[in-house]
Amino acid sequence: MARGRVLEAALALFAEHGVHGTSLQMIADRVGVGKAAVYYQFRSKEDIVLEAIRPTIEDMARVIRTAGALPDPEQRRVVAVSGMVEMVVRNRQLAVIFHGDPAIDQIMNDEPDFKAVSDGLREIVEGPERNVAERISCSVFLSGVGKAAADPELADIDDDELHRALLELSGRILAPAAEPASR
Amino acid sequence: MARGRVLEAALALFAEHGVHGTSLQMIADRVGVGKAAVYYQFRSKEDIVLEAIRPTIEDMARVIRTAGALPDPEQRRVVAVSGMVEMVVRNRQLAVIFHGDPAIDQIMNDEPDFKAVSDGLREIVEGPERNVAERISCSVFLSGVGKAAADPELADIDDDELHRALLELSGRILAPAAEPASR
Repeated sequence: MARGRVLEAALALFAEHGVHGTSLQMIADRVGVGKAAVYYQFRSKEDIVLEAIRPTIEDMARVIRTAGALPDPEQRRVVAVSGMVEMVVRNRQLAVIFHGDPAIDQIMNDEPDFKAVSDGLREIVEGPERNVAERISCSVFLSGVGKAAADPELADIDDDELHRALLELSGRILAPAAEPASR
Repeated sequence: MARGRVLEAALALFAEHGVHGTSLQMIADRVGVGKAAVYYQFRSKEDIVLEAIRPTIEDMARVIRTAGALPDPEQRRVVAVSGMVEMVVRNRQLAVIFHGDPAIDQIMNDEPDFKAVSDGLREIVEGPERNVAERISCSVFLSGVGKAAADPELADIDDDELHRALLELSGRILAPAAEPASR
């Protein structure tokens, strides 16, 4: 049994039941093997969670590296935002795990490597000023776009159309606030 | 022991650990009683979850009733959106449960009363045309605004400022799409 099959089954179950709602037994059943076979490959469920989400974090780190190399904050933001939108649309099923599951929120906070990526993204998207209005817009962008990509109510919308619409919405959400009162 | 204390403890634990990550034992410990005392009040954890989220669903139903009574779709939308923003800001801690937890998503789908409220809200916010762009904007609004209200990174921002900023962002997100290409 390949590790990849376990990780794939685990991700599908996490998306359906959440990380806390998924047991090692459920993962083994989905792969069609015994629990012992899964334990042969992974030490624990936590181990599976970390391995399963790592490729996505690495994707995100790549977007941030690409953006961070640019000198201009506005260019950095455009590259980071468009890269994130591309990521969530490419992997709509996975987006639900990253934008909602409290267990993943906790891992993203507890693992220093992962925390650095998520902080780096927020820093680029919020911009150098980081005023209150920009911090709120950034939060709405990060969770709104991610969750919409995974929204079952939008499952009939094709990827290209979703991609265009989310990019357009990201632009609106992250545009400088019109009213100075909210600054 | 009052039922209210159990429900209050349960909601706090759901926000921290998710519904799946919260056991009846954890709820009993938080209240400072034995599991038997909790079972005396509630049949099961599911029972506690339903009771704990019901007041919020009823709040939401009230917003929809108020909005739905208006004749003009644009007025209905304004009332529903502003009502939702007020709700999430008034209860920032609770917002995390409603905008992320897969267990709650499932309950909202499985309980016909709750499903009717959530469908009603979506219908009013999407508007009568319900084209693709509007459906996507509605999804980004519902999850983005809700999750931002509960975002621990924004915990230092006071309610009034958050309220103003989220209302302003809701207006931008739900404004008619500028580019006809995304329709």
